[in-house]
Amino acid sequence: MGVMIPFRSILNSLKSYEAGKPIELVVREFGIDPNRIIKLGSNENPFGCAESVMEVVRQAISKMSFYPDDSYLDLKTAIASKFDLTTDRIIPGNGSDQVLDFVCRCVLDQGDSVLINRITFAMYKIYALQCGAKIHSTDSVTHDLNAFLDLAKLIRPKIIFLCTPSNPAGDALSKSDVYEFLSKISLDTLVVIDAAYMEFGKKKDPNKFIPAKEVTDLFPNVFYTGTFSKVYGLGGMRIGYGIGNQELISNLYKMRPPFSVTNLSALAATEALKNESYVESYLENNWNEMKRYEKFAAEQSIEFIDSYANFITFFARKRGKSSSEIAHSLLKQGIILRDLKNYDLNALRITIGRPEQNDLVLEALEKEFH
Amino acid sequence: MGVMIPFRSILNSLKSYEAGKPIELVVREFGIDPNRIIKLGSNENPFGCAESVMEVVRQAISKMSFYPDDSYLDLKTAIASKFDLTTDRIIPGNGSDQVLDFVCRCVLDQGDSVLINRITFAMYKIYALQCGAKIHSTDSVTHDLNAFLDLAKLIRPKIIFLCTPSNPAGDALSKSDVYEFLSKISLDTLVVIDAAYMEFGKKKDPNKFIPAKEVTDLFPNVFYTGTFSKVYGLGGMRIGYGIGNQELISNLYKMRPPFSVTNLSALAATEALKNESYVESYLENNWNEMKRYEKFAAEQSIEFIDSYANFITFFARKRGKSSSEIAHSLLKQGIILRDLKNYDLNALRITIGRPEQNDLVLEALEKEFH
Repeated sequence: MGVMIPFRSILNSLKSYEAGKPIELVVREFGIDPNRIIKLGSNENPFGCAESVMEVVRQAISKMSFYPDDSYLDLKTAIASKFDLTTDRIIPGNGSDQVLDFVCRCVLDQGDSVLINRITFAMYKIYALQCGAKIHSTDSVTHDLNAFLDLAKLIRPKIIFLCTPSNPAGDALSKSDVYEFLSKISLDTLVVIDAAYMEFGKKKDPNKFIPAKEVTDLFPNVFYTGTFSKVYGLGGMRIGYGIGNQELISNLYKMRPPFSVTNLSALAATEALKNESYVESYLENNWNEMKRYEKFAAEQSIEFIDSYANFITFFARKRGKSSSEIAHSLLKQGIILRDLKNYDLNALRITIGRPEQNDLVLEALEKEFH
Repeated sequence: MGVMIPFRSILNSLKSYEAGKPIELVVREFGIDPNRIIKLGSNENPFGCAESVMEVVRQAISKMSFYPDDSYLDLKTAIASKFDLTTDRIIPGNGSDQVLDFVCRCVLDQGDSVLINRITFAMYKIYALQCGAKIHSTDSVTHDLNAFLDLAKLIRPKIIFLCTPSNPAGDALSKSDVYEFLSKISLDTLVVIDAAYMEFGKKKDPNKFIPAKEVTDLFPNVFYTGTFSKVYGLGGMRIGYGIGNQELISNLYKMRPPFSVTNLSALAATEALKNESYVESYLENNWNEMKRYEKFAAEQSIEFIDSYANFITFFARKRGKSSSEIAHSLLKQGIILRDLKNYDLNALRITIGRPEQNDLVLEALEKEFH
């Protein structure tokens, strides 16, 4: 008996997100010992989270039966302190993913326009399509704000998504360019600044740092999102946040379901914010190890994008193995990288790992690119 | 500078869910030692989860940096085994809450009708309103399937929500009545059977047990939801699931964001399903202790609803203290119950606690009702 439920016609145009391959899948498909697998396909912190964070979670395990404090007051207070904001400027989410979803659902009616970069985080398009929006994108791999501006005038989007530093390309916008751009954008267009990788960009070049308080104070149409999945090493715990003008935040709360962040996740994130020296040493490793990948690329004449994040994107050679072939070959060796074929790029995104992981990855890549 | 963002007009009609009070709030407001607080306002398992579940989470803490396996294959396999189903009949969610949201977003266009019981879980209405649906409800506190049927013919709802056993009233429908009802409902109406408390109802009266496989095999328009927040003692970890016909499930997947269940949560839930004897002993405590509340109510001539879940709903006396007054008085003593004033009932919902918790609650209630 077939299903006669009249699903919304919108579902026909929807596709699911293709996640980076998990360790479990590589174990299942190739029978590789999970402890031997090098997972550098999802831009996670390769050192994990701080020991103090693990200890806080360990101590809280007996509380798993209690629903979270749905005010998330401790978590919001800690985030507010990081950004020098009041808590009413912050909304937590199940990853920054979820706050991106809130924005789409609060602003987009069917047929509304959304503007994104050609190469950008896949979820903007997915959430916007779920709302029945029309997606417009620029033509370039890295962000070109002039192209954004021209298109914005033409299509009058309800939302513009900027990802800086950008995933999966790695480029970043300077604060001055972003502010100039924002000053030219109509205040009835919401501009999302996805700052999931901002801590990395700030460390490499302070000019790329966009302070959440300043930008949302200056521009009430900016929604700034951040995450605990990257520098803080809590990707599996699903915690992100959005920052904006108080009126914007209170509207987003209307689409927020209760309890969407687990109680252990909220505790972990709150603790993670107390240990910035751990973050600092991870950032130092990231930029030291990044140099090895850049050197390798130069030696091998591999084209790459100058990265402001915790990954580097290598283009496959036009006449050599494709990115998919290389990714698959490494996967069989237990090394997970991200093939960007789904983004229409013949390129590989490689998360910068621990030194000993990078030794093995570079060795394996040399065989593929030589 | 005010926000000029054109929020969707739909936001004007939305209200947020009012959650049960968390321990943190009682500590903040009344300065009570958190270890002294008795939290029986959110229908959590008062014994917590099984020790084996805690141990699995403890062992996995170093994996918090890794994104979850977005296929959730291990979790789905464990759920499939509990229900004798294939994994393609199951969709996991951030609490059963989230799968209820998926259903609304996949089926409801603006202006569509939804049918709910007068007294029922508040999130059905909230999620449906977020989709712009019109909410129709029956008139009675407990579920009256004839009233549902009459209204269904009149308003032709896209979705009907049945909550059995029902939260916050505690009544439950028999399988035979539900099947007769379903046989009269048009197959293009989706019927959600929210079975969050089903394990409790089944233990008290096998006639109230609605098997997920059977009902979704017989009726392709049924979506059955369950949770790990109640018998399994994992309310803080946010894991639920939906079960249905494979075609229904594959459609719901189109609205599912990636990674919405944390990796620790998925591990915890998978382990919890291996320890049914723990669940069994909790169920025995629940029904033994329930008798004490029923006896107390009889002695005090308190009106209550015969409950098939892990809570009991006491009506306040017409000429005595209101439910809000009683709830507040107990709160000051560190006892959290749920005042049902927001449901337009002058009643208190009391989660059945551990024996020593119930001693204190009954003692405190006696002073309020005497």
